[in-house]
This record gives sequence, structure tokens and C-alpha cells, in this order.
Amino acid sequence: MPALAPELEVSRWFNAPTPLTLADLRGKVVVLHAFQMLCPGCVAHGTLQAEKLHRLVARGGDVVVIGLHTVFEHHAAMTEVALDAFIHEYQLTFPIGVDRPSEDDPIPRTMRRYGMRGTPSTIVIDRDGVVREHAFGQVDDLTLGVLLGSLIAASSSAWTGQAEAASGCDNAGCPLPAVAST
Amino acid sequence: MPALAPELEVSRWFNAPTPLTLADLRGKVVVLHAFQMLCPGCVAHGTLQAEKLHRLVARGGDVVVIGLHTVFEHHAAMTEVALDAFIHEYQLTFPIGVDRPSEDDPIPRTMRRYGMRGTPSTIVIDRDGVVREHAFGQVDDLTLGVLLGSLIAASSSAWTGQAEAASGCDNAGCPLPAVAST
Amino acid sequence: MPALAPELEVSRWFNAPTPLTLADLRGKVVVLHAFQMLCPGCVAHGTLQAEKLHRLVARGGDVVVIGLHTVFEHHAAMTEVALDAFIHEYQLTFPIGVDRPSEDDPIPRTMRRYGMRGTPSTIVIDRDGVVREHAFGQVDDLTLGVLLGSLIAASSSAWTGQAEAASGCDNAGCPLPAVAST
Amino acid sequence: MPALAPELEVSRWFNAPTPLTLADLRGKVVVLHAFQMLCPGCVAHGTLQAEKLHRLVARGGDVVVIGLHTVFEHHAAMTEVALDAFIHEYQLTFPIGVDRPSEDDPIPRTMRRYGMRGTPSTIVIDRDGVVREHAFGQVDDLTLGVLLGSLIAASSSAWTGQAEAASGCDNAGCPLPAVAST
Repeated sequence: MPALAPELEVSRWFNAPTPLTLADLRGKVVVLHAFQMLCPGCVAHGTLQAEKLHRLVARGGDVVVIGLHTVFEHHAAMTEVALDAFIHEYQLTFPIGVDRPSEDDPIPRTMRRYGMRGTPSTIVIDRDGVVREHAFGQVDDLTLGVLLGSLIAASSSAWTGQAEAASGCDNAGCPLPAVAST
Repeated sequence: MPALAPELEVSRWFNAPTPLTLADLRGKVVVLHAFQMLCPGCVAHGTLQAEKLHRLVARGGDVVVIGLHTVFEHHAAMTEVALDAFIHEYQLTFPIGVDRPSEDDPIPRTMRRYGMRGTPSTIVIDRDGVVREHAFGQVDDLTLGVLLGSLIAASSSAWTGQAEAASGCDNAGCPLPAVAST
Repeated sequence: MPALAPELEVSRWFNAPTPLTLADLRGKVVVLHAFQMLCPGCVAHGTLQAEKLHRLVARGGDVVVIGLHTVFEHHAAMTEVALDAFIHEYQLTFPIGVDRPSEDDPIPRTMRRYGMRGTPSTIVIDRDGVVREHAFGQVDDLTLGVLLGSLIAASSSAWTGQAEAASGCDNAGCPLPAVAST
Repeated sequence: MPALAPELEVSRWFNAPTPLTLADLRGKVVVLHAFQMLCPGCVAHGTLQAEKLHRLVARGGDVVVIGLHTVFEHHAAMTEVALDAFIHEYQLTFPIGVDRPSEDDPIPRTMRRYGMRGTPSTIVIDRDGVVREHAFGQVDDLTLGVLLGSLIAASSSAWTGQAEAASGCDNAGCPLPAVAST
């Protein structure tokens, strides 16, 4: 039985009227784009890819793109004020959460929890809350698209089945039985 | 009941040991890349995309990428000898068919049959032989990927179901005999 | 007699052991790249162009590339600490000066002095200290290269002549004292 | 005393009302872009660079861009008819000469004469008819621009001087004395 994706720990949200949780998004395909605003590889590729994906694919409501500002270096430079300006200047419209800093660890909490190797990292979570892809570095558009398309299509019935079996469960832990039968 | 994709009419194949027909490929997702070797928009984007797709996605056997050399102008320049050299120099490995010329029409037969508007054209055919996308010009990698992913995943069960219900036929699961009448 | 390029007003230098002045650089071709670290058009093109130019052309000692961080918005985000991290992450090696802020003007002093229209701006100054190009937005590599090549070559003899006529001064050969009064 | 660039041997010109010779172009900076229409590296970079250069820089009359179709393989594919269509489809406007084929050598005459290593090759000839750059593969825009700018500027006086010293000389051999004194 595959493990569920760890929940996000976010200290502040941008582009989101209310906080987002993976538990609330169960039933949807979630793409996490972990980045730092001063990471050249992020800005040149991944962040634009996330924005494109958000505009292109997220319309249908099956896919949710979430940015995660996982600052693990240059903390004094990549403040929330700076991120706010970055989001404004790059005209990013997808929801972006600031990964909650640790007190005794330069690596923030969600990043540590997922064992990410750096930024950019792309994590794709299926409708059942299971991590289906975890990549460090650039991800090709075509490859990402095929994966998302298959998760959108393949999981929909699984999710329906899961919804039927929902009794007995509660929140984030609930989808697991359905996963077992997938 | 949606119409089936018209069959290909090809006068010569490159990169294919035996001729390909859509009828034989029923059960697979097929991507047709219609191009001309002297079409700048094709060479700069679509043909490279088709090659990338062939190498990336076609491995699993669910997707077949087919090039179609649809010469509708400069016929004396874009000969089979020239196409052979083009394929060699651009190191293309996906199967490419020469769309059979008409006697009294500058537009070749398959191109006419599909009502293509020019080159490049991208046509995506699902496992049941139905055209699901027909685009003229550049197609975005992410968009194409999502479509392919959903067709790979969504149709697989449909195809299984279709195979079971093959005799007598009914709706989308029974297209195969109809191909003969195309 | 063409006007001399106004002197730089810089509050802090990065990648420069000692402060740079245009007066000291008379005799060389100077390329000013005015940018903001959160300006997408700068980061995607101009800043990389400046770095490439610095590595490629500046070797010979005839051309000096100078970055100018002209913050005119989001002042709280684009601090010196943030710029320091930006320079580190983007591995920039050309000298970069922070355009000195004004007390009562969001536009910093050098930017105001030059009448720049925004970022990125590219200003090319010839060996005699005269502005030969002042462009807002992207500048094509080929166009910039031709201009620089011609200034390197054409001005060298002029500069020699100027050096000879240095005492007493007259026309284009005698700009140096004039800088003081700018 | 540097050797003069060998003369072109061209069997047919496109985009040129009359044949071009290097001898006639003495006094101008000449950029030779040697290519084959089925060479991917040429089409993706060099040929577009040549066209851009022609439109951008050649206006002033100091620089002449000349394409040279140096077919050394796939001769049956890269015919003059095919080249004509290629020029039309890629909307090339700079003069292009077909390098004259040899009878007993797959490498055409001008290509052999220059000792080119393949396509694309870029050859830059100064106002005195001397080869100043001979590169195989991609040439960076900025680097090429700087070289051209310096040749435009530096040679102009040399050329004037040379013209004054013209007596005693004849045609293609004449510029050499001036070069010696540069």
C-alpha cells in the first residue's frame, strides 16, 4: 500500500484566498512546484512551466498546481516581501505557499518532510493522495503532460470507487483503503 | 457514433519494415505528424516534437507516431530521394509515409481525405480509431502530452471492453469492421 | 561637441575591488547594463548578455561591462542583501554597482541622470566618454556586437590622438576635466 | 603579407541580378555562409544568422553577406530546383551561389579551395580581401558582430589609404601593399 503524500506546512499563502491542504484536494491531481525565487533553473524553466500548466490544464478542475517556496539558503534575501514582488513581476497566478521555516534547520519543513534534493523539484500526486512522480531539476513538458493526462483519466474511476467506500474514514487517512484495491 | 479516422494512403514507407495501416493499429493511440521537408515551421518544431514523442512515449507500445510527408507544393524539390536524405540528416527514427500524390490535384490523397489545412498538421487518433485532435500549426508539448496521457489511460479499459464485445459490435467499442468501408 | 556621459553614482559595488568611475575608464568602451533583479526581461536576456559580453569581449581590456542595479520599485524586496544572493546564484562576474537611491524620488540617481525609461536599459559609451547608444528593452547580440566592434576599432586612433592633445584640451579629445563639472 | 581569399566558383546565383566576385567586392567586408539545405545545424542557426545579418548590417553597404551552397553529400537530393524551393520557403533574401561541383570529387570547388571542414562554415573577409575568420560550426552572434564592427571601422581608413596607393596595382592583387602597412 503506497504511502500518502505528506501534508504541506505553509506559513503564508499567495494567490490563494484560503489555505490549501492536500487532504482537501484529495480527488484531484496535484502538481507541487518547489522553487526558490533566486534559483536560476527554477525561474528559467520550472516556474514558467508551473504557470503554463496552471493556465492550460488546471481549468478543468482536475489538476491543481501549487507552488512551494522552499528557501534553504539566502534566507535574508528571499523574504516574504521579496517573494511578493517576485510573484507580482513574473505575473504568477497559481497558488504559492511559503514552506514553513524550521527553527534549527536551514531546510524548511515540507521540503525536509518530502526529502527533496533541491530546487526546482516537481512532485505529482494522484487523486488518491499518492506521490507518483518526484523529480529534481527540469521536467520535460511532454513527459509531464503524459503523466498528468494518464492520472486525470485513469484515476477518475478509482476516485469514484473510493468515494463510495468513504464511510469509516476521516480526513487525510481516508483514501488509503481505496488505494489498496487500485 | 463518431466517424473513424480515414485510412492512410501511402506510396512509400521509410523507417518501417512493412506498411502501416490505421486498421492494424486499432487499440493503440496514433499521432499523425503531417509535414513537408521544406516547411520551416515543421522542421523547427513539429518534426522534432514527433521524434521526441517517438523516443519518449512510444516505448510502451501504447502510442504510435507516424510521419506523413504531405507534399502539396514544390513537388519537384521534395522528391523521395530528397526525403530519404532529410530523414538521414535529421536522424529521424519514427515511421514516415509518403502521402500518395493525386493525378489531378496538387494535394496528396491522405491530406485531402483528412481536410488538412496545411503543414504541419497534428492528428491524434484514439484506441477506437476516432480522431480526437486535428490541429494546424504548432501544438504545445504540455497540451499534447495531457491529451495523449488521457487517451492512453482512459481508452485502455474501453479497449478491453471493446475487445470483449467484439462480435456483433455496438457503439464506440466496435469500430473495426467499419474501417473496411472507409 | 557631443555631451559626455554623466558620471555614475553608486552606493555599493559588487565584483569590483575598488569603485569604478567613467572618468577613470576614459579610453575604453563602456557598456552599462541597467537592471533590476526582479525584472523578468532583464534576467531572461540582458543580464545574461552582459555576463556573456564580459567573458567574451572584455578580455582584451578594450571593453568594460558594468552592471547598474537601478531599483525604482519594490525597494523593500531588492535590497543589497538580496542582490548579493542574486549575483551569487546567477554566477555573475562583471562589476555591478547599486545605483544610489534618492531621498525623495523612487528613481535612483544615475537612472534619473541618464533619463532611462526603465529596465533593462543598455548604454554604450565610446572611448571619448560619449554615449553612442541608449536602448530600453532587449538589444540584439549581433547589433550590439557590430556597434562595439566599430567603437573598439574606430576610436582607438581617436583616443591616441586625444591622448597626445591632452594638455589644454579642446574638442572630443579633452573630456576628462569636464566630467568633474557634470 | 597575408594571402588573399580564393575567388568563388559558382555555377548559379539566386537572389543576385548578376554574378558576384570577391574581386568586385574588394573594399567591403564579406561574410561567406557555406551551407547545405539539408544540414540541420545550418538551417537551425547559421542560415538564419546570415539572413539576419543581411537585413541588419548589410544596409549600410559596408558588409556583404553571401551564401554558398556547398553540397558535398546527397547530391541527388540537394538539386538547384530543391534549393530554389528552400530559398523561397525560408524567405531568404541574401545572395546565394551554388558552389560549382567537381567532376571527380564529391566536394565542390570553392569548398575544396578554402579547405572547409564541413557545413556550416563561416568565413569573414576584410576590405582588403584577406580572410580574417574561418569557423566551422556555430558562430556566436556577439562574437561575430564584434569582429564585423571592427573590420568595418578599422579597415575603412586603410581602404581609403589603399585606394590612394592604387597605382601600380591591378585588381585582386592590388590591396596587399596597404595591408602590409596596416
